[in-house]
Amino acid sequence: MFKGGYAGKILRLNLNNLSAKEEPLPEDLVRDYLGGAGFGIKVLYEEVKQGTPALSEANKLIFSVGPLTASGAPCASRMSVVAKSPLTGAVGMALSGGQFPAEMKHAGYDMIILEGKAEKPTYVSIHDGEVRFRSAAKLVGMMTTDTQLFVKEMLGDQNYRVACIGPAGEKQVPMACIINERRAAGRKGLGAVMGSKNLKAIAILGSQKPVIADPEAFKIARNNMLRAMKESPVLYPEFSKAGTPMTLDVTTNMGIFCIKNWSETGEIDMVPTLGRAAQDTMIITRNPCYDCPVSCSQVKLVTSGPYAGWLSEGPEFETTYSLGSSVGVDYLPAVIAADRLCDEYGIDTISAGVSIAWAMELYEKGIITKKETDGLDLKFGNHEAVIEMLRRISYKEGLGELLGRGTKKAAEKIGHNSIDFAMQVKGLEMPAYDVRGAKAHGLNYATAYTGADHNRGYAFQEIFDVPVPEKVDRNAIKGKGKLTKWNQDLRAVTCDCAPMCAFLMDMAVPAVACKNTADLVNGAAGTNFTPDDIATIGERINNVAKLFNMGEGFTRKDDNFPKRILTEPIKAGASKGELISQAALDEMLDEYYDARGWDKNGIPTAAKLNELGLEKK
Amino acid sequence: MFKGGYAGKILRLNLNNLSAKEEPLPEDLVRDYLGGAGFGIKVLYEEVKQGTPALSEANKLIFSVGPLTASGAPCASRMSVVAKSPLTGAVGMALSGGQFPAEMKHAGYDMIILEGKAEKPTYVSIHDGEVRFRSAAKLVGMMTTDTQLFVKEMLGDQNYRVACIGPAGEKQVPMACIINERRAAGRKGLGAVMGSKNLKAIAILGSQKPVIADPEAFKIARNNMLRAMKESPVLYPEFSKAGTPMTLDVTTNMGIFCIKNWSETGEIDMVPTLGRAAQDTMIITRNPCYDCPVSCSQVKLVTSGPYAGWLSEGPEFETTYSLGSSVGVDYLPAVIAADRLCDEYGIDTISAGVSIAWAMELYEKGIITKKETDGLDLKFGNHEAVIEMLRRISYKEGLGELLGRGTKKAAEKIGHNSIDFAMQVKGLEMPAYDVRGAKAHGLNYATAYTGADHNRGYAFQEIFDVPVPEKVDRNAIKGKGKLTKWNQDLRAVTCDCAPMCAFLMDMAVPAVACKNTADLVNGAAGTNFTPDDIATIGERINNVAKLFNMGEGFTRKDDNFPKRILTEPIKAGASKGELISQAALDEMLDEYYDARGWDKNGIPTAAKLNELGLEKK
Repeated sequence: MFKGGYAGKILRLNLNNLSAKEEPLPEDLVRDYLGGAGFGIKVLYEEVKQGTPALSEANKLIFSVGPLTASGAPCASRMSVVAKSPLTGAVGMALSGGQFPAEMKHAGYDMIILEGKAEKPTYVSIHDGEVRFRSAAKLVGMMTTDTQLFVKEMLGDQNYRVACIGPAGEKQVPMACIINERRAAGRKGLGAVMGSKNLKAIAILGSQKPVIADPEAFKIARNNMLRAMKESPVLYPEFSKAGTPMTLDVTTNMGIFCIKNWSETGEIDMVPTLGRAAQDTMIITRNPCYDCPVSCSQVKLVTSGPYAGWLSEGPEFETTYSLGSSVGVDYLPAVIAADRLCDEYGIDTISAGVSIAWAMELYEKGIITKKETDGLDLKFGNHEAVIEMLRRISYKEGLGELLGRGTKKAAEKIGHNSIDFAMQVKGLEMPAYDVRGAKAHGLNYATAYTGADHNRGYAFQEIFDVPVPEKVDRNAIKGKGKLTKWNQDLRAVTCDCAPMCAFLMDMAVPAVACKNTADLVNGAAGTNFTPDDIATIGERINNVAKLFNMGEGFTRKDDNFPKRILTEPIKAGASKGELISQAALDEMLDEYYDARGWDKNGIPTAAKLNELGLEKK
Repeated sequence: MFKGGYAGKILRLNLNNLSAKEEPLPEDLVRDYLGGAGFGIKVLYEEVKQGTPALSEANKLIFSVGPLTASGAPCASRMSVVAKSPLTGAVGMALSGGQFPAEMKHAGYDMIILEGKAEKPTYVSIHDGEVRFRSAAKLVGMMTTDTQLFVKEMLGDQNYRVACIGPAGEKQVPMACIINERRAAGRKGLGAVMGSKNLKAIAILGSQKPVIADPEAFKIARNNMLRAMKESPVLYPEFSKAGTPMTLDVTTNMGIFCIKNWSETGEIDMVPTLGRAAQDTMIITRNPCYDCPVSCSQVKLVTSGPYAGWLSEGPEFETTYSLGSSVGVDYLPAVIAADRLCDEYGIDTISAGVSIAWAMELYEKGIITKKETDGLDLKFGNHEAVIEMLRRISYKEGLGELLGRGTKKAAEKIGHNSIDFAMQVKGLEMPAYDVRGAKAHGLNYATAYTGADHNRGYAFQEIFDVPVPEKVDRNAIKGKGKLTKWNQDLRAVTCDCAPMCAFLMDMAVPAVACKNTADLVNGAAGTNFTPDDIATIGERINNVAKLFNMGEGFTRKDDNFPKRILTEPIKAGASKGELISQAALDEMLDEYYDARGWDKNGIPTAAKLNELGLEKK
C-alpha cells in the first residue's frame, strides 16, 4: 500500500530475554491508523490486557513516528510514546519533538515496541538496524543530561540521539517523563513505565533517508502547507517569534490564565514578570526541532541573581503556569531553574507544578501543616520550597512521594476535602487554561482519552482568531460538543499520527489540515488517502482509545471536573463570574457523545464501531 | 628532525581580525622544548612582552600537545594551556586531559596560539585544518556543559570536542578555568584570559592519526613503559582503583591533610566521611582519558539527600580538600555538588575553595562580618554558604568578586592581618598538602614558576613508597633543594611536554621516566633524544619560565610562604609540631638555587643560561 514515507519496519524489543525482532509494518495498520499515536494506541489496545497494572512488565511502551517524520514536511519531527498510564490508568500517550524522532526514522523504524522487564538496568542502542542491549549499571541515578552525555561517550559516537529517564523514572514516580535532548514526552508517567522495565535509555543513530514515493506531488503538497502556514494570522511572525509564552498574554487578557492553583485566576499582578515581554529578555538562542521552519523553541538563560547559570529549553507557556503562576511564583529565573530541574530529574512539569500548587493551597488552608511537609514552608510564592519539593517528588521523599502520585491519588491519602482542590481529570493534572472561561477547553479536559490534556483536542477557536470550522463564543455551552469532537479527531490524526506539530495545526492550517495531511502523506508514502480518510482515522483513534479506557473501568462519571470548576466562579478579570455547572457540563457531554455516535453513558454504539471497523475486545 | 609523532603544524589564530594562519612546527622548538608546556612557555616568553596585562589582548593563550599525544603511548592524552596568569602575574600553565587533546592532534595541530581579542563573543571550530570563527552570541552566559552541548548542536556534528569557558571566564574572574568535557585546565585563571579574548569555546574534530616513525621501536618502548607501570607498587591496583582519593587517606595518616584553611591540620574527625572508603561508595562509573589504561577518573553521583542527582567527575583529592576539609565541610554530597558547580561556572576548585576557606577563617575571627558577606553565615562547615559563594565568585558579586581575585589580592583590600591566613604563594592558592610536614612539597610550592602548584614538582618521595632518586625523610630540610630541582625538571618535561600523565610519572616510572620518554618519543617521532636531552629540556623549561617571571618582577622574596607556615606549628596528628621556619626555608632555597645554577637571589647565572642555550630578552 505504501511505497515510501514509512520505514516499513517495527522493532519489537523483549526486555525479559533481551531479544530484538523486526516485523514488517502491516498495511492495514497504515491504512487505519496512519502512524504515530495511532500505531501506539492500536498496539496498546490489542496487546495489553485489560486490568494490566501500568508498572508491571505486562504493560508495553511504544515509540512511534509517522509517514511525515524526517520526510522534509515541515514541523514533522514528532514522535508518540504510548503505554497504559500509571498516573491515570487510562491510555497514556505523549508526544515529543527535537531530533530523536527523525533519527528513529533514519535508523529504519516506524515503531519500537518495548515489552517485559529487564533483569538489570539496561539501555538499548540502535544503529541502522543493529540492536544491542547494554548494561546501564553505570547510568543508574543519573540526571537526564548526564545520562545522554555518558550514553554517547560509552557508545563512542556522540551523534546518537538518546531518549532516557532520570532518577524519577527509575524510581517509577507516576509522573515521571521521558527526555530526549531537553524535550519531554512529558505527561502521564511514561517515564515510570520505562523505569518499570528497567530501561534507562534508548540511543538511536541512523543514516537511512526516507524514500519519497512521489517527489513532485510531495513538493506541491509541501509548498501548499508552507503557504498555508504563511497565511496564518498567528504563526508568523508572532508565534514563531514569541513561542508558547505568546499564549500567556492572550490568556491573561481573557482572564483564563490560572493562578495559585486556580484560586485566583484573573488576579494578574504576577503576570508582568512572567509574561511574554519578560520571557523575551531571557532568550539566548533557539533550538528548533529537526526540519522546523517555525522554531518556536526558546532557550532561556538566567544571567544574574540566585539562579544565575540555569538554562532551560523553556519554560513553555504551560510550565510558566505550573511552576510559576500556579505555585504563586512570579520570579521567572526560579521558573527556569525549576523547569530544568524537572527535565533533569525527569518529571512532568505540569503534573509536578500543579500537584505542588495543590499542596500549597492545602497548606495555606491548614489541611496540611509543617508536620506533613517535614518543615517546609509550603506557602504560595516560595520558589525555594517548590524546587525542594521537585526533588522530593523525584526521590519519593515524604510528602513528595505522595505528590508524585498526582493530586487525585494523593487526595485519597490526605482526605478531608482535599480532592475538591485537586485540579485534575482522571488523575491527570489540568493545564494552564482556566476552563471556566473557555468551555470547549473544559469539555476537552473532561473527555480527552488521556485525562485533562490540552493537547488531545485543543480548542484554538477559543484562544486565537482562527474561526475554523467556525467562530465560537468561548463561554457558550451549545455547540461545544460538536466542536470538541472535531478538534479531538483533527488533532488525533494530523498532529499525533502524521505527525505534525500541534502549533502548526492549531494556528495555521486547521481548515486545510486533513487535505494537506493527505496530500503530504500521499506524496511521501505513495498512498491514496482522501481528506475524509484522514478525518476518519482521527475519529477511529479516539474510539479505540475509548475502548481501552472502558476496559479499565472509565465511565461517564470520569468525564468530569473537580468541584472548583463546577461551583466556584472565577473571581476577577475578564472571565469573572464564569464557571461550568454540572448541568452545563452534562449538556456539553450529551452533545459530545451524540456527535461521537456514543450513547448517553459515553459508550460507542455498535453502529459507530462498525462504521469505524472496530470491535470491543 | 622529526618524521612522525608531531602533527608538524602550528595554528595561529588572530582574534583581532579573525584570521587563521598555519605555520610549520620549527625543528629547534622540538629539539629544545619537546612539546606541550615547553612549546607554550617558550612562545609566551618570546612573544608576550614584559609587563603585558594578563587580561589585555596582548596576552596570548596557547594550547599545545606533544609528540606522544594520541600516539598510542599510555596516559598521553594531555594538553598544556599557557598564558600570563591574571591570578599571579607569573607564567600561567595548566594541563588538562580527557578527549580534547587527542582530538587536537587528530585535527592536525601541535599548538594553537590565540592572539588578540575578538570584537564580539566568538567561538572557533577546527575540523581537520578547516578553521571557522563563529558568533558565540547565543552562548553568552552559558554554563560549560550546556555550552558544549549547544556548540555541538550548532556545528551539526556532536563528535566535536569542545574546550570552553563558563560565566566566570566570560566575566574574567581571575580564577576562571577552561573546561573540556568535565575536565579542567583549572588553575591560574586561564579561563579569564580566554574570556578577555572574547573567546567562548574552541571546537575541534579531526581524523588524522599521527604517523609513528618507527613502529617497532615505539612498540618496544611502549611495552617497556607498560611493564614499568605494572611494576609500580602504587599504580596498580591501588591508584587505578581508588584514584586520587587514595592520597586522602595517605596524607591523613601522615598528618598533612589540611583542614579548615590549614588551621586544624591533623584534626581528622571529618576525614572518615570524605576519605577513600566514603568516596568509593559514590562511584558510578569511570571516564578515562583517551587511551588511558589506568582510568583513575571516577564519576561520582549523589543518589539521596539534598544534593541528590548531582554528578561530578571527581571530586579529586585536591577538590575534596578545597571544597571539603578546607572549608570544614565533611558532607561528601555537598563537595560533589560544589565540584560540579565549579566546572559549570568554570572556576578553579582549588583557588575557589581555598579562598572561601580563608574568608571563613576571617569571618570566624571577626575580621569580616555579615556586613561583608551580605548576610551569608560564612562559618566553617556551612556547605550551603560555600555553594552560594561559588556563585558569587563566578558572577563577581560582593565578597565573591573579591575572593575571585584570589586570597593575595583580596587580602590587600581587606587589610588587617588577613594576609597571614591567605594560604597562597605568588597569588596561587595552596593545594592540599600541608607542607609543614612535607618539606620538599613546601619548597616546590615556594619555587614553582606558577606559584603554589603541586603539579610543577610534586615530591612523591614524601608521600609514596617510591624511593627515587632516593628515599627521603619528609621533614628533613637538607637535600630538599636538590630533590626539588630534580622533581621539577622531571615533571616539566615528561608530564608537561611529552606529555604523559603526572600520576604515571609520580607513582610508576620516575626511575626510568627520562629513558622511557626518550624511547617513546624517538619511536613515535623518529628523533634521537637521549635521556639526558630529555632531562635538560625539563631544566630549560624551568629556566625560561624563571626568565619570564623575572621580567614580571618576581624575586627571591616571592619564593616564600604565608606566615602560618613559617610560624604556626601543626597542632595535632602525625605531623604535630612541624613548621617551616624562615631559616629552614632560606636553607632550602639556598640549596635549591645552588642546584639550579642560580645565584643567591634566585637569578640564573650567565653560565647556566649559556649551558641551556638561553638568553634574557
